[in-house]
Amino acid sequence: MQKKDLGSMVCPVARSLDKVGEWWSIMILRDCFYGETRFDGFLKSLGIAPNMLTRRLNELVEAGLLERRQYCARPPRYEYVLTEAGRDFRPVLLMLHAWGNKHFAPEGRAVVLRDDLSGADVQLALVDSVTGDEIDLRRHGMAASPAAPESTQKRLRLAAERRVAERAAASRSH
Amino acid sequence: MQKKDLGSMVCPVARSLDKVGEWWSIMILRDCFYGETRFDGFLKSLGIAPNMLTRRLNELVEAGLLERRQYCARPPRYEYVLTEAGRDFRPVLLMLHAWGNKHFAPEGRAVVLRDDLSGADVQLALVDSVTGDEIDLRRHGMAASPAAPESTQKRLRLAAERRVAERAAASRSH
Repeated sequence: MQKKDLGSMVCPVARSLDKVGEWWSIMILRDCFYGETRFDGFLKSLGIAPNMLTRRLNELVEAGLLERRQYCARPPRYEYVLTEAGRDFRPVLLMLHAWGNKHFAPEGRAVVLRDDLSGADVQLALVDSVTGDEIDLRRHGMAASPAAPESTQKRLRLAAERRVAERAAASRSH
Repeated sequence: MQKKDLGSMVCPVARSLDKVGEWWSIMILRDCFYGETRFDGFLKSLGIAPNMLTRRLNELVEAGLLERRQYCARPPRYEYVLTEAGRDFRPVLLMLHAWGNKHFAPEGRAVVLRDDLSGADVQLALVDSVTGDEIDLRRHGMAASPAAPESTQKRLRLAAERRVAERAAASRSH
């Protein structure tokens, strides 16, 4: 498999990585959520080479995550604004952020997510909005639709059987 | 900035990308959550070149996300098992998955997250586990500790001021 094949896979993780599979793209999106919109701003913030920045911005526009808007006619100047799909990337960034803070910030957390209303640091949790229950490796798992390849269906059936066995083992040990 | 510099930045997103900034690494972790542990299994599932797979697996072991365990003495055979930090990557994958299903699966969703107990598809939500409220772009934002560089502090103060203005505008429009 090559990177160009990611978009044609049925796996939604692969499809997502087709759009943001390069770390520069994710750093640029991070800057967008900090309010950055301009080429020079990204350049300064990221220490990225101009030709690389141009390429990544064009890819993000083509992927439908950023919109290029002219904000000055003479000289022509453009800014880059998150689209709806781009804004919807924020939960991915927040989880990457929380994961980094938990495991890779031995000297302490330099940047934290804060609740403006209370001023408190946020403890993120991923839940099922219908049941309100937190997502659990042993209870929530991937399932394939009939449209998925047989190899994917088989693999996900096996994973589901392992979850059943793990739940049974956990309930016996209580 | 080069990829090797990501790990020395204070930003936890950069630190995370230092570990999983290459899309192959994320596809390998995806397979681990599907239950894959063996070199040949990854090879077959991903269609990755063997030398690339070796390199990525070694990086994931070095990053502390996978543990290499010998499961057969003669001939020596190894399997790759998620560590605690590796398992904690699952919420990032789940969000990437949900984002891909929402925006990049025009023909329908081939793989969905399911609740084994109810059999229902899961609607993911990211919440603050203290308040129970869903994370909101206008209410929850990044804040820098005094240890963060002045440029980061300034940028996050500006972003916080924009959120205040957006909340004020939203409340006026109600």
